[in-house]
Amino acid sequence: MAEDPFGWLDAAREQRADAGLVRRLRPRAADDPLLDLAGNDYLGLARDPRVTTAAGDAARRWGAGATGSRLVTGSTGLHAELEAELAAFCGFESALVLSSGYAANLAAVTALAPRQARVVSDADNHASLIDGCRLARAETVVVPHADPGATAKALAGHPGPALAVTDAVFSVDGDAAPLGELHGVCRRAGAALLVDDAHGLGVLGRGGRGTLDAAGLAGREDVVATVTLSKSFGSQGGAVLAPARVVEHLVNTARTFIFDTGLAPAAAGAALAALRVLRAEPERAERVRGIALALHRGLTSAGLSAARPDAAVVSVRAPSPQAALRWAADCRAAGLAVGCFRPPSVPDGVSRLRLTARADLTDAQVTRALRTIVSLAPQGA
Amino acid sequence: MAEDPFGWLDAAREQRADAGLVRRLRPRAADDPLLDLAGNDYLGLARDPRVTTAAGDAARRWGAGATGSRLVTGSTGLHAELEAELAAFCGFESALVLSSGYAANLAAVTALAPRQARVVSDADNHASLIDGCRLARAETVVVPHADPGATAKALAGHPGPALAVTDAVFSVDGDAAPLGELHGVCRRAGAALLVDDAHGLGVLGRGGRGTLDAAGLAGREDVVATVTLSKSFGSQGGAVLAPARVVEHLVNTARTFIFDTGLAPAAAGAALAALRVLRAEPERAERVRGIALALHRGLTSAGLSAARPDAAVVSVRAPSPQAALRWAADCRAAGLAVGCFRPPSVPDGVSRLRLTARADLTDAQVTRALRTIVSLAPQGA
Ligand SMILES: Cc1ncc(COP(=O)(O)O)c(C=O)c1O
Ligand SMILES: Cc1ncc(COP(=O)(O)O)c(C=O)c1O
Repeated sequence: MAEDPFGWLDAAREQRADAGLVRRLRPRAADDPLLDLAGNDYLGLARDPRVTTAAGDAARRWGAGATGSRLVTGSTGLHAELEAELAAFCGFESALVLSSGYAANLAAVTALAPRQARVVSDADNHASLIDGCRLARAETVVVPHADPGATAKALAGHPGPALAVTDAVFSVDGDAAPLGELHGVCRRAGAALLVDDAHGLGVLGRGGRGTLDAAGLAGREDVVATVTLSKSFGSQGGAVLAPARVVEHLVNTARTFIFDTGLAPAAAGAALAALRVLRAEPERAERVRGIALALHRGLTSAGLSAARPDAAVVSVRAPSPQAALRWAADCRAAGLAVGCFRPPSVPDGVSRLRLTARADLTDAQVTRALRTIVSLAPQGA
Repeated sequence: MAEDPFGWLDAAREQRADAGLVRRLRPRAADDPLLDLAGNDYLGLARDPRVTTAAGDAARRWGAGATGSRLVTGSTGLHAELEAELAAFCGFESALVLSSGYAANLAAVTALAPRQARVVSDADNHASLIDGCRLARAETVVVPHADPGATAKALAGHPGPALAVTDAVFSVDGDAAPLGELHGVCRRAGAALLVDDAHGLGVLGRGGRGTLDAAGLAGREDVVATVTLSKSFGSQGGAVLAPARVVEHLVNTARTFIFDTGLAPAAAGAALAALRVLRAEPERAERVRGIALALHRGLTSAGLSAARPDAAVVSVRAPSPQAALRWAADCRAAGLAVGCFRPPSVPDGVSRLRLTARADLTDAQVTRALRTIVSLAPQGA
């Protein structure tokens, strides 16, 4: 009786503390002076007045919230407009907007992996794809990272629907999946390919049309993409891009679509404005890729260990979790925000700094960032 | 080989069509003239200029998106302000804001139900709680709807952490859970109680402080509540209200918190403005309850079958799915939007219209709504 039902939390907390893995919220100020190489605002649009004004306009015109599920009162003309332009831009027949990229991934995986299906999932996939696999009724086979051969083997001989699932650009290391090969493997197995392009949209492909565009796979009848509106588009929300019949299936079966309030009009309006800016200024996509490569060049020429980035994410190895944490904190003290990834958030146990390129960084800012990171690098990095 | 990997969707689509259960998106216009008794904007705040202006102001000041996980760049001072005011208003020690109520439920259930735990879940719980149970590593026991005795039995004798999970106000029928009894049962079993107050916040409790306030359970050390910012607060987002150590645990372990972009500032700002309006105008909560009761009185006195509403949701039985669909469509043709719930979205197989009260409905609008619904009622309703 008078037991403490949350007593077990104390042990969990001590374990975190002992392992040096306590996470704390650190709210930033509106005029935060840090140079930001930690966020995912790849195109520098989150604070673009065209985008923020569109958020306010949409709230005024459509309301601050969608007021219900997209299937009840939560679908507005603005959602329909965003879906049409997003599908056209990315080269897909149809698009369905959800309240987050996380919700979009849960929706896509669960709806496309019924009980008789087999899902083959890359070991380094994002948490939302993994949770989608866990929620789905299908059998999931996890295959080694970026391994089309293992994917082919895992797909082989399954009689029911089959689906290979992968990030297009992996969020921790920034490397791209071998999409062409994976698609070939899927075709030969009669499987569909589901690609999470959260980190490719706005960065890769012609004018930022995404990794599927770059791979020549956009709009294929056996390909589904998910995207988020919270990174390159500087807003919030997610979308599934797919053949119309897949979208129709999601509308009718995906629980995170049906039982969730529609995306707030302000977020839909901001994302639509961001898409239009990108269409008008396609050079932003090139610029962000160029900056990522410049960061990589600067780091490696200083002797640091960083993989060549395939998109906007540049990952730099640290010799230990403690060193990574200290390195990031030192950068912050020097006015530079960088991401710090440690176990268990890294696939391979290797801690690293995670830097993100942004299209609106000046050359001087890139130089300053590099100087800071290099000068504060720990022994052994 | 040239197999159609989505061929199985066609059979699923035909089954839906045969069962008369096809769902379609119907985007509304900004100046939609329908009288809305279908949305969840209970306090009429989604289009309140104080709320929509706050959305625009927040976007301008903080950006259209949060730009990253709350643990990286996605926490702003605005999020912290919203969390502090929300916790204080609802009477809890701490609050944690997530991108949706759905994400808040996934976070709360999964983080509080580790592998050794047992979760006892009401059979009529919302999809997001059910998905939380499915994602959690714990064993889940589903008990009959609103049954403290069955909950007690299911909790009994479990050696590890235990958690009872329930909606406070059930979304389809609008009935309230027996929270006092459930809490007693939990206490005796040494279990915690997790309550989803999506439909109680803004409606029940003193000045709309929620169902936990009404039950005298807010802030108890063994009680956790989740809320959504998308219904009474007219915005988007969700929150977990809990003792500080529970929130700290969520920050460190909840995947839909850690691996999701923070709530868009516009949505946080709008929700905060709505909360402040409600604090200044507590009569809105009374008004919405009064309107729900008036709807119920009007329906039952006309001979229709509706349960007495515990909050803002009024559910009216229809004799069949087809009759419910036709009834809702006839109402729509007459200028009135009402919800229509049919299998499989109803717990008991009984189709119904779902009406929602709104604090800003005029008496004339209530009268008109009643007249429309009653005059169009099918034979046998
Ligand atoms: C690869 C990937 N997929 C999905 C998501 C989830 O998107 P959102 O933050 O919009 O929910 C993220 C990050 O947040 C991501 O990095
Ligand atoms: C009881 C209940 N819980 C949770 C949710 C999810 O909240 P949100 O729509 O903010 O994701 C809803 C409805 O959408 C609900 O009715």
